[in-house]
Amino acid sequence: MKQSQLFTKTRREAPKDEVAKNAQLLIRAGYIYKEMAGVYDLLPLGLRTFEKVVGIIREEMNKIGGVEMHLSALQSAEPWQKSGRWSDEAVDAWFKTKLKNGADVGLGFTHEEPLTALMTEQISSYKDLPSYPYQFQTKFRNEERAKSGLMRTREFVMKDLYSFSKDADEHQKFYEKAAEAYARVFERVGLGAVTYKTFASGGSFSKYSHEFQTVCDAGEDVIYIDDATKLALNKEVYDDPEVYKTTGVVKENLREAKAVEVGNIFTLGTRFSEALGLSYKTAEGKSESVFMGSYGIGPARVMAVVAELLSDDKGLVWPEEVAPFRVHLIELQSDNEEVSKEAAELYRELTEAGVEVLWDDRDARAGEKFAESDLLGLPLRVVVSEKTLAAGKFECVERASGHTSHKSISELIGHLTLR
Amino acid sequence: MKQSQLFTKTRREAPKDEVAKNAQLLIRAGYIYKEMAGVYDLLPLGLRTFEKVVGIIREEMNKIGGVEMHLSALQSAEPWQKSGRWSDEAVDAWFKTKLKNGADVGLGFTHEEPLTALMTEQISSYKDLPSYPYQFQTKFRNEERAKSGLMRTREFVMKDLYSFSKDADEHQKFYEKAAEAYARVFERVGLGAVTYKTFASGGSFSKYSHEFQTVCDAGEDVIYIDDATKLALNKEVYDDPEVYKTTGVVKENLREAKAVEVGNIFTLGTRFSEALGLSYKTAEGKSESVFMGSYGIGPARVMAVVAELLSDDKGLVWPEEVAPFRVHLIELQSDNEEVSKEAAELYRELTEAGVEVLWDDRDARAGEKFAESDLLGLPLRVVVSEKTLAAGKFECVERASGHTSHKSISELIGHLTLR
Repeated sequence: MKQSQLFTKTRREAPKDEVAKNAQLLIRAGYIYKEMAGVYDLLPLGLRTFEKVVGIIREEMNKIGGVEMHLSALQSAEPWQKSGRWSDEAVDAWFKTKLKNGADVGLGFTHEEPLTALMTEQISSYKDLPSYPYQFQTKFRNEERAKSGLMRTREFVMKDLYSFSKDADEHQKFYEKAAEAYARVFERVGLGAVTYKTFASGGSFSKYSHEFQTVCDAGEDVIYIDDATKLALNKEVYDDPEVYKTTGVVKENLREAKAVEVGNIFTLGTRFSEALGLSYKTAEGKSESVFMGSYGIGPARVMAVVAELLSDDKGLVWPEEVAPFRVHLIELQSDNEEVSKEAAELYRELTEAGVEVLWDDRDARAGEKFAESDLLGLPLRVVVSEKTLAAGKFECVERASGHTSHKSISELIGHLTLR
Repeated sequence: MKQSQLFTKTRREAPKDEVAKNAQLLIRAGYIYKEMAGVYDLLPLGLRTFEKVVGIIREEMNKIGGVEMHLSALQSAEPWQKSGRWSDEAVDAWFKTKLKNGADVGLGFTHEEPLTALMTEQISSYKDLPSYPYQFQTKFRNEERAKSGLMRTREFVMKDLYSFSKDADEHQKFYEKAAEAYARVFERVGLGAVTYKTFASGGSFSKYSHEFQTVCDAGEDVIYIDDATKLALNKEVYDDPEVYKTTGVVKENLREAKAVEVGNIFTLGTRFSEALGLSYKTAEGKSESVFMGSYGIGPARVMAVVAELLSDDKGLVWPEEVAPFRVHLIELQSDNEEVSKEAAELYRELTEAGVEVLWDDRDARAGEKFAESDLLGLPLRVVVSEKTLAAGKFECVERASGHTSHKSISELIGHLTLR
């Protein structure tokens, strides 16, 4: 894409009311726009990065048998009344509104209830199980305080997968697969080294649930990390002697760290299937409640954590898999028309080779272009100027390492398409 | 995808409270699920078709210079108060709710106001224009009656593009390009022959706006069609003598038809830019208000109209470009293991060739499978059975025409990948 086509502008300063580093950076770089506290728009570059994260999660969910669908945001009270989660006393994050006929409707803050109700029409026999529907869908949560930028918002897309299994055994096998898929997601987005599978309290059907916690000073949580096993405990279970038996970690070896929860997996058991009447007939003709689990990741929060952790004092630094474009092609304006022609040719060849390129074709000074390029944080900067034209090689600078090299078109394409 | 993995079931009967044919069919085929009147979930097949329509629209918007972004659903009152559209008297379709601090927020029924406000930070000079941001974003509209299935819903994704131009001339050129792009969208989804560019009343800045109306008995609108020019007039302008001068159509030649509005394009002029202070400096340093237009299509409504119009008494009939899968591979169960192996091999080869296949691998009777296949409406049914195994060719049946042929694997792949 030509940068001249991009309508967003970078800013020297973040808005004064924005205290979170991730939002400050993303706003300054023109990735997002703040509508109100806890509510952000995704501008073109932000949407592209967001969609990269979504694409990675989608691939990993499909690999473990997930089937994508999409539920509504507007929710009728009925299924929530059955589970006991409709009243504002039970759930204080509800946004509610009214239909013309006066009926109350809620804006889904999660989707266990409506999906369980829906599944009563789809599941009747053991032959219909297991099943793993998931979605990327907007959740609304009436947060009291929303000060962490994109890390805690009032409106956000969540990938929520729900597992429907015959029993605890079948559930447990999928639960482990889901945990592995989650680890792959965080690895691919660039957070693998600092993200810990963290034991948290479970509920009626499992002693523990698991959070994926990324170490981050801006995080709202505190976790206790065992570096030897790469496991962690959250505050809820830290003082529970049982968890040390289960995990084999030694309390004295743990180190405390601030962290942000980037994903969680939870054994729901029959909590919702019993409340909403989701049962199936076994091979022997017996009626059993379906055994459920839930698995959440917020792609925009992941994007925020990457922005927060991998940035430097010049701006954002995106890993390749989540960058909005892989190459930032900087054309330095000159009186020599050949520079512009060469940039156009390089843009064409890279695009044809399947490389995503943001081409800075604007009329601006070199210093300004470089500073802006650092702020935007694309993995590889390629400069076309009179100097590179004379040399017959482009200057290539890696954003993360600062490593500079000089490459011809064919060397560059070879480098970028080699996998 | 294997059909055994799909958790949806087809139904013989639509729910009794569902009166719209499109929703009846889509519910029976397991494409959608009704949460409440005017609110539907997209089940896996429905989501795939929906995403195909989205993909077509996205391609056509990108071709005319559109740049994708995503605005929030939660809306603060301020920009809407400036334009005069915040009060329930001005706009009766608002859904509103409250933040914890008591502040009113709305759920966007459209996005002129917030986007215009956002653009005041992006646009300052004539060099920043024109600009064409668009999004696929969920709108909420508190409809009094919602009885037309997916054609009129309380929650739906809209593709809304907004044009920001220097003046009426620059605007008009893009407006014409957008009209052409819209015509291509409706052509590609299979509605080209029955969709008419329809003159509608304009507003302060243009005598006319344009609707794209598809002739359909279930439509809520009435249009007047001139078959010679393929133009139409809506009710608002039918009695206006001016429109006949502008279009050159002759009133006596018009035929009346019921129709559904599948898209619209509108000249907004400076209505919103003046209200919200969106101006730019000309080359001469003069301050001017930005000249705007808006361009909407609802992909789910398009999907509903295709379902309604192109179906037959056996079920849905999807055109290739919007079908959830292109091939329905029907494996007829038998004691001969070779049948299953052959189906698996065909599935593998087609998938590798880039053809999307739904493989009915379930244990069910042939008659049931065929009836269900007709209901789902994928363009090509390919049958693998003992009979086809013996013949060395698969039975291929086109859903739309019923045309039957027999093809080897290589003939089939050749047929499906030839473009």
